[in-house]
Amino acid sequence: MQKKDISKAVINRLPRYYRYLGDLLEKDVVRISSKELSEKMKVTASQIRQDLNNFGGFGQQGYGYNVEYLHSEIGKILGLDKNYNIIIIGAGNLGQALANYVDFERRGFFVKGLFDVNPRLIGVSIRGVEVMDIDTLEEFISTNSVDIAALTVPKTKAAQLAADLAKWGIKGIWNFAPTDLQIPKEVTVENVHLAESLMKLSYRLSSKDNPEDEE
Amino acid sequence: MQKKDISKAVINRLPRYYRYLGDLLEKDVVRISSKELSEKMKVTASQIRQDLNNFGGFGQQGYGYNVEYLHSEIGKILGLDKNYNIIIIGAGNLGQALANYVDFERRGFFVKGLFDVNPRLIGVSIRGVEVMDIDTLEEFISTNSVDIAALTVPKTKAAQLAADLAKWGIKGIWNFAPTDLQIPKEVTVENVHLAESLMKLSYRLSSKDNPEDEE
Repeated sequence: MQKKDISKAVINRLPRYYRYLGDLLEKDVVRISSKELSEKMKVTASQIRQDLNNFGGFGQQGYGYNVEYLHSEIGKILGLDKNYNIIIIGAGNLGQALANYVDFERRGFFVKGLFDVNPRLIGVSIRGVEVMDIDTLEEFISTNSVDIAALTVPKTKAAQLAADLAKWGIKGIWNFAPTDLQIPKEVTVENVHLAESLMKLSYRLSSKDNPEDEE
Repeated sequence: MQKKDISKAVINRLPRYYRYLGDLLEKDVVRISSKELSEKMKVTASQIRQDLNNFGGFGQQGYGYNVEYLHSEIGKILGLDKNYNIIIIGAGNLGQALANYVDFERRGFFVKGLFDVNPRLIGVSIRGVEVMDIDTLEEFISTNSVDIAALTVPKTKAAQLAADLAKWGIKGIWNFAPTDLQIPKEVTVENVHLAESLMKLSYRLSSKDNPEDEE
């Protein structure tokens, strides 16, 4: 499938399409017009058509989109037709929240290991996965197939840990530490910066006359 | 301060500037050129100048930016010169993670209440704040000044809860439920969709030849 020219903006919208189509599937909706999809998603119908045309378009004039087919095709584009083994480094509340999130599993993301430095957490079992000593991390990675490491550790630990993970061959890092990781280009990093999200909210609350809020 | 014409893209970058400048402040850095800031942040120097010019610019030719002043001015733009009272609805792992995040407090976000339906959680104290029965939520809001509600509840509960919060006068919702809330325009919603973030990571991992990865 041709993916070369897809803009970042389109990629950012795809997971949302996928979620909406999944909701429709759960309600046994078989097909939907771009107009209906547009009303639900608050994106213009032409934007939807344009986005999906990037992938050859999946709609048929006068029929609309087949929900199951479109959901499955977007899933493939997002790489959700594969399984990913995840480890979570930092088994505090946030790490445990991620480990407990069953929806991830449904989409092919399997938590294979949890690691922490805290002796009170080591040995504790979260949804059948035992928290291991972070000192065993390198060995675990060398003897298991790990695709993604979620980093839920303090900012001060994240940089070194990410460098180690890159060295040990991890290709994807889901970073929750409030810092930007400087690691080799062959490692893909997706950041979730919660404090920045909260600042965007305070910006919008404190400038309520801003037309951007209307979006 | 004139904020009317600031684009969403600029607003999205401001928290990152704020974070970097905060890191520099912690290291007692007094001033920085747009070139140095650019190298640290991997944004072009001209982008930085352009972004900051939206707010009148804070730099001086040949001097660069005064770190403390710029940090404080961006903080004001982001509304961080005020305090916000937050309640967290859903005191599971994710809600507890948010309640435990001291950095929020440092930036003026104070957790005033935690709510849950689970009797095993009600009465538990998280950093000095007791988890309350969600049935007392309306009364709590009517008798306390609450600016922001963080929603860490299941998707199925989020829509009704958000509608109630809007009715009870809450102006800002920080939504972690994997659904888009349909509520009145006067309520500001900031979404953190973790599953979508993970899908973006899998997209980039599964299309590693995509030039978008290089960004």
